[in-house]
Amino acid sequence: MILVLNGPNLNMLGRREPAVYGSATLEALEAQCAAWGREVGVPVVCRQSNFEGQLITWLHEAPDEGAQGVVLNPGGLTHTSVALRDAVSSIPLPVVEVHLSNIHARESFRHHSFVAGVCVGTIAGLGPDGYAAAIRFLAGRGRPS
Amino acid sequence: MILVLNGPNLNMLGRREPAVYGSATLEALEAQCAAWGREVGVPVVCRQSNFEGQLITWLHEAPDEGAQGVVLNPGGLTHTSVALRDAVSSIPLPVVEVHLSNIHARESFRHHSFVAGVCVGTIAGLGPDGYAAAIRFLAGRGRPS
Amino acid sequence: MILVLNGPNLNMLGRREPAVYGSATLEALEAQCAAWGREVGVPVVCRQSNFEGQLITWLHEAPDEGAQGVVLNPGGLTHTSVALRDAVSSIPLPVVEVHLSNIHARESFRHHSFVAGVCVGTIAGLGPDGYAAAIRFLAGRGRPS
Amino acid sequence: MILVLNGPNLNMLGRREPAVYGSATLEALEAQCAAWGREVGVPVVCRQSNFEGQLITWLHEAPDEGAQGVVLNPGGLTHTSVALRDAVSSIPLPVVEVHLSNIHARESFRHHSFVAGVCVGTIAGLGPDGYAAAIRFLAGRGRPS
Amino acid sequence: MILVLNGPNLNMLGRREPAVYGSATLEALEAQCAAWGREVGVPVVCRQSNFEGQLITWLHEAPDEGAQGVVLNPGGLTHTSVALRDAVSSIPLPVVEVHLSNIHARESFRHHSFVAGVCVGTIAGLGPDGYAAAIRFLAGRGRPS
Amino acid sequence: MILVLNGPNLNMLGRREPAVYGSATLEALEAQCAAWGREVGVPVVCRQSNFEGQLITWLHEAPDEGAQGVVLNPGGLTHTSVALRDAVSSIPLPVVEVHLSNIHARESFRHHSFVAGVCVGTIAGLGPDGYAAAIRFLAGRGRPS
Amino acid sequence: MILVLNGPNLNMLGRREPAVYGSATLEALEAQCAAWGREVGVPVVCRQSNFEGQLITWLHEAPDEGAQGVVLNPGGLTHTSVALRDAVSSIPLPVVEVHLSNIHARESFRHHSFVAGVCVGTIAGLGPDGYAAAIRFLAGRGRPS
Amino acid sequence: MILVLNGPNLNMLGRREPAVYGSATLEALEAQCAAWGREVGVPVVCRQSNFEGQLITWLHEAPDEGAQGVVLNPGGLTHTSVALRDAVSSIPLPVVEVHLSNIHARESFRHHSFVAGVCVGTIAGLGPDGYAAAIRFLAGRGRPS
Amino acid sequence: MILVLNGPNLNMLGRREPAVYGSATLEALEAQCAAWGREVGVPVVCRQSNFEGQLITWLHEAPDEGAQGVVLNPGGLTHTSVALRDAVSSIPLPVVEVHLSNIHARESFRHHSFVAGVCVGTIAGLGPDGYAAAIRFLAGRGRPS
Amino acid sequence: MILVLNGPNLNMLGRREPAVYGSATLEALEAQCAAWGREVGVPVVCRQSNFEGQLITWLHEAPDEGAQGVVLNPGGLTHTSVALRDAVSSIPLPVVEVHLSNIHARESFRHHSFVAGVCVGTIAGLGPDGYAAAIRFLAGRGRPS
Amino acid sequence: MILVLNGPNLNMLGRREPAVYGSATLEALEAQCAAWGREVGVPVVCRQSNFEGQLITWLHEAPDEGAQGVVLNPGGLTHTSVALRDAVSSIPLPVVEVHLSNIHARESFRHHSFVAGVCVGTIAGLGPDGYAAAIRFLAGRGRPS
Amino acid sequence: MILVLNGPNLNMLGRREPAVYGSATLEALEAQCAAWGREVGVPVVCRQSNFEGQLITWLHEAPDEGAQGVVLNPGGLTHTSVALRDAVSSIPLPVVEVHLSNIHARESFRHHSFVAGVCVGTIAGLGPDGYAAAIRFLAGRGRPS
Repeated sequence: MILVLNGPNLNMLGRREPAVYGSATLEALEAQCAAWGREVGVPVVCRQSNFEGQLITWLHEAPDEGAQGVVLNPGGLTHTSVALRDAVSSIPLPVVEVHLSNIHARESFRHHSFVAGVCVGTIAGLGPDGYAAAIRFLAGRGRPS
Repeated sequence: MILVLNGPNLNMLGRREPAVYGSATLEALEAQCAAWGREVGVPVVCRQSNFEGQLITWLHEAPDEGAQGVVLNPGGLTHTSVALRDAVSSIPLPVVEVHLSNIHARESFRHHSFVAGVCVGTIAGLGPDGYAAAIRFLAGRGRPS
Repeated sequence: MILVLNGPNLNMLGRREPAVYGSATLEALEAQCAAWGREVGVPVVCRQSNFEGQLITWLHEAPDEGAQGVVLNPGGLTHTSVALRDAVSSIPLPVVEVHLSNIHARESFRHHSFVAGVCVGTIAGLGPDGYAAAIRFLAGRGRPS
Repeated sequence: MILVLNGPNLNMLGRREPAVYGSATLEALEAQCAAWGREVGVPVVCRQSNFEGQLITWLHEAPDEGAQGVVLNPGGLTHTSVALRDAVSSIPLPVVEVHLSNIHARESFRHHSFVAGVCVGTIAGLGPDGYAAAIRFLAGRGRPS
Repeated sequence: MILVLNGPNLNMLGRREPAVYGSATLEALEAQCAAWGREVGVPVVCRQSNFEGQLITWLHEAPDEGAQGVVLNPGGLTHTSVALRDAVSSIPLPVVEVHLSNIHARESFRHHSFVAGVCVGTIAGLGPDGYAAAIRFLAGRGRPS
Repeated sequence: MILVLNGPNLNMLGRREPAVYGSATLEALEAQCAAWGREVGVPVVCRQSNFEGQLITWLHEAPDEGAQGVVLNPGGLTHTSVALRDAVSSIPLPVVEVHLSNIHARESFRHHSFVAGVCVGTIAGLGPDGYAAAIRFLAGRGRPS
Repeated sequence: MILVLNGPNLNMLGRREPAVYGSATLEALEAQCAAWGREVGVPVVCRQSNFEGQLITWLHEAPDEGAQGVVLNPGGLTHTSVALRDAVSSIPLPVVEVHLSNIHARESFRHHSFVAGVCVGTIAGLGPDGYAAAIRFLAGRGRPS
Repeated sequence: MILVLNGPNLNMLGRREPAVYGSATLEALEAQCAAWGREVGVPVVCRQSNFEGQLITWLHEAPDEGAQGVVLNPGGLTHTSVALRDAVSSIPLPVVEVHLSNIHARESFRHHSFVAGVCVGTIAGLGPDGYAAAIRFLAGRGRPS
Repeated sequence: MILVLNGPNLNMLGRREPAVYGSATLEALEAQCAAWGREVGVPVVCRQSNFEGQLITWLHEAPDEGAQGVVLNPGGLTHTSVALRDAVSSIPLPVVEVHLSNIHARESFRHHSFVAGVCVGTIAGLGPDGYAAAIRFLAGRGRPS
Repeated sequence: MILVLNGPNLNMLGRREPAVYGSATLEALEAQCAAWGREVGVPVVCRQSNFEGQLITWLHEAPDEGAQGVVLNPGGLTHTSVALRDAVSSIPLPVVEVHLSNIHARESFRHHSFVAGVCVGTIAGLGPDGYAAAIRFLAGRGRPS
Repeated sequence: MILVLNGPNLNMLGRREPAVYGSATLEALEAQCAAWGREVGVPVVCRQSNFEGQLITWLHEAPDEGAQGVVLNPGGLTHTSVALRDAVSSIPLPVVEVHLSNIHARESFRHHSFVAGVCVGTIAGLGPDGYAAAIRFLAGRGRPS
Repeated sequence: MILVLNGPNLNMLGRREPAVYGSATLEALEAQCAAWGREVGVPVVCRQSNFEGQLITWLHEAPDEGAQGVVLNPGGLTHTSVALRDAVSSIPLPVVEVHLSNIHARESFRHHSFVAGVCVGTIAGLGPDGYAAAIRFLAGRGRPS
């Protein structure tokens, strides 16, 4: 199983600043993720929360839920949360950071990610395709032994 | 309707550092806000939370609740929360940032606000009168069409 | 009496960058201020200068003129003038800093104010309503004893 | 009573990076704290949360719960949370900041603590013994009068 | 056609620091890229140079060569070359920045990219799979009209 | 008409640090400017002041005086005056910033200009020839319609 | 003759923040300076202005007035005025910078002086005695030949 | 002879971002330069390269080619190349730095020039007229003896 | 044996700034340390010096003296001495850094410690109790084998 | 008695960089200080050391020696020694910081003094006259009661 | 064999700023290097290029050419080229960085070297003798096995 | 005679962190230096101290002792001591700075040397060979006349 976690404000997808984030809703994105999972033969579970504490807890529980990897879009917490970084490094699963928009082409406070340094890799600016690439990448690594 | 959102620690008003924040309680402040709303003929709804995620969610729900604007005192999150900033910019309502104390006369880490740049305006140091000014301002703009 | 001081370039109001500063002229703004003063029963005296030295001198003279407070929009001097800050702290009157535009949503060199730390409070982004709020606030404090 | 508050990711103790944090679990640490409390004749109550808002609320409630002091390990929030700092300064109890690892020997973003400046003191790098020292210190100060 | 440009030192792939960059050679990587292109039905042309000026010139020529997008791994020039950035923004083609390693988990001078801000998106840390994701993304956008 | 404004200390030309600024006086420079204006068929009016407020006022009045452009040497105000910057952006005329010496080869605090970002262009280090180039450039643009 | 120039807000001496600046007025200070000048047999001329431009002009005129040196207290302009610095370096007279209070023990923005680097020396924190020391020093150097 | 050197991406003139750089091609610009040279009676030789090493070599050869000065537009190398700076200072010819656009009104990383400090002067934002001014200036200085 | 080293100015304890450092003298503190050593059955040797070189030498000699650990309060050297840091890392003994006052609540230059990164841990703000905690901690680790 | 303390390298006076420090020796300077003391009727005791620890110790002993104030030239320690700063603030005597040269006109690392903030005042650039002014100032304050 | 690589502008040796770099030409320096190689019984091969890409390529080829070490003077690329740093770390040979002048006594932008961190060591300021020391050092290490 | 001065902690050579500093003792290093001196026919005198003040004093005495140059390894003082820098510049002898390890490949606070800017040159990372190179270099310069 691959866990897809979306952070604060991503529930507003499709309604919030469509010029930046596209017009598809979170529900549509999650359905796409499930479909990409079926393509590579791995179930995909999607969750969203506006609470840092909830995201941290879901990361902690991921190994026991049988996840083989996590796709993480931390939203605005990307740039401010050491606690989320610590949660990523507290679990023995590969995590791929994904951003819909190109954070490097936006305000300078979005250029630094506290999470990137403890993730396997990071993808930004490819829109929903970033999730597809992350799911394919994690599926190709298989379950950690 | 105008929504008044108070963030972390503002439930301690009147008990916490009265030299800085005054001796009136949150309940008193919220009653004042309701009264100011009646003066300008717009109902005022007040909420407080110590959770960033809850404030974000209330901002998301404000348009569907019929709010015509938001008065936001983010407390300590002012200086650290990109997620709250993103929540403000994710809704099509005018938001006015209010601080009871003059944050520019305090520690240097209180001089920068992540929220100010996406608010319509900001008021600091006027005590409860800052809420009054924000309510009057938002009432004067009417409902966004 | 409440003194309203406008600094450099505010004589260009209505002619300069109306997208930023609105289309009303300084004369109109000063007339509004006088009207707001009448509402709260305190005479309002308005002055404007492009000279830092003149603004400093007016601040020095304010107590002897019988002012009970000052509304100060220092224009571009906000971000560069320690001398103006010293003038504010040299007089025993409450001073409220006002900006028509939201300086926190503009260039980063406009995010810091040398004056804010010695004012009672600061208002930005509410347009002319910021002057109204400042006048009401000062009127409510009465004359310093 | 002495309150021991552990922040985000400390529920992973013993499972997360044992080279950094040791192999004892949170349960074991909390049992040790209770034992140290018995040694000095003061009951110890332990709580953990991954939510900033929950930690803030527990701090607010500590005086009414009869706590005479708080041992606080804010985890990753140490370096990012002004709201938690404000909660510490909003209560009239001595708070001692404790870290299991030596945060000064780790990444540079862990060298600054927003909480330290409003705590009575800070202990880092002594492992569980840091909690013992904090409990003994608070017990020795007795109840604030 | 999709153009894949590799910058300085990528000719050393497989020989240079395999712990960081993997053990496959540039030839193997280029063969993989060609294969991924065949999967999505778009020819892929690969080039490598240690000269900034050569990479700039290849970018200039890409539109006339019929490229519909460029995959660019600028190597060490990522962090220092404004001229390469200008070359990317001088052509009307989508460019995706790719790095084999997670540059955000390495030295701090590798955390900033001059190129990212003018690319469509960026991928780091996925090894050769990053090239695959970029090729699929560009193929999905089709030829610019 | 083209207005040439010289700021603080330029009245000392020829007497002040001739190694840096040359030995010609301000009178000689202004005579040259008039001559260059005659060459391109546009009258040139020259003024100098040591007062920031005076320079701001002259800029405000330039459109009504019939100026088609301004040559501005702000002297030491270049590096410190936001108010002067605001004056430049408050008028609908092209302004060219000119410095006699190469400010980039002097102390580091002279490397930044607050005015440059709102001018059409900037010339430094060419001595009086910089004024000639600015006058020719402005004459070539004609009167703004 | 020795010229003593006092900058913005020094006309408020004795009335402004006596804890910082002492309770003697500017008139008293100027009388003391004249007396110290008589002690060393050099006439002392004192002037004060709140206008940067006026101080610059007085500096320019000092050599022709027959001054053999200048005692300069630039007030808040100390920390912000490159133009005043340029005025000091534009004249062939020794200038001694004097501050009544110890600027190094106040806010950090008062720790840097633009003027110090081009003065002969600087004195701070000795109250009126600083003026005495500067006058004695300049008298001891005699008239520049 | 005056040498005009254009750096990386200037071969894209007229095709690249015409809003920033104008619509004239490099060929047209070089023809203009030749014409301006004829006006002042000095032959003009123009070259362009995307390679830093080539520009450095041309600078080295300029004295032996009989150049009496160099007009240098280093493109993006302006902000990053110490080697180019060293090449300028290694030859005994006056060099004038020219930029078509106003680099001070663009991204902050374009505000610093490594080359400016060793050039005679610098011109930015005047479009092709900047080249004209530089050629006239160098022609007026004649051949170094 | 546990060695307790106190650095510059700690000989002034009880006489210097009692509001910050308490009213007990160094002699009293050293007697307390000896007593705490007896409690845990390890002799404690205390030394103080105002000379960095002496503290370095004592650290070098500690292993041969039979110390099993060092309690180090470097005073003002904490923030400035790389040489002291090197001395700590040059010996195979655990060192605990102790400060009487909470250095994080004082001037910002006291927030960084050069020594902390090579110590086992650090304690600040607990007054003499910090020494007790350090002695207990080192006693509990026993002699390095 | 007034104590004059000279720090590292001041024993080289007259031999070291006379262009910066003058040609008089330390012995001559100390003789001058004694003479100035006789003028104001207070004995002057002079000491010099290259050891930070020695200067600290002399400061500690000054009150018991009957000093009524200290003239301190810390040499290069000015810019690096927190321990010396702490020594100054550990004694109840007024200390005046003196520098022979104008440290603000030298390398930027000499512009900051750790000692200035805890001294009564500071004098720089007046050569030996700075010592005279400091002695006169301290003599005028008399013995602290 | 030992490879000696000289970067941009070193072909100008003897002609460029002899006060900084000495009066010997590159040919003379290379002849000296060959002679020093003969002294220690190792052939020395010297190359120079103004192109970063060429230097990178020569570094890549050095192992296959049979080099046992490289002496590298990167000229101005020292301070700006991550790509050159990567080339050094991509080969299994010891590299010694050499500068003729003392880069630490020049402009501050010359104080940082991107290459130093991946070289075995660095020598600056000894003139040609630096090359001799590097050749002797590398000869003494022999061929890597 | 050539003086070799080793600073703090170098007495621990061979015992301290052999992975960084090698396994030879200070005695062995000093014997090597003497031998290298005999090779070039110049006596070598070696001294070590952990006291900054002692190193400064030895530097002062070097000219009178007949030294023709100094080899200086300041240890940790390299990065913090302005007083040592001043001592180097106070004597008319060439000083070469030597470090056993490559300080540029270690912690960032070791990348800056206060001493380098006033030494003739600097050598780092060559182990004891760095001392050999410095001795040869100084011997080759002969006695200053």
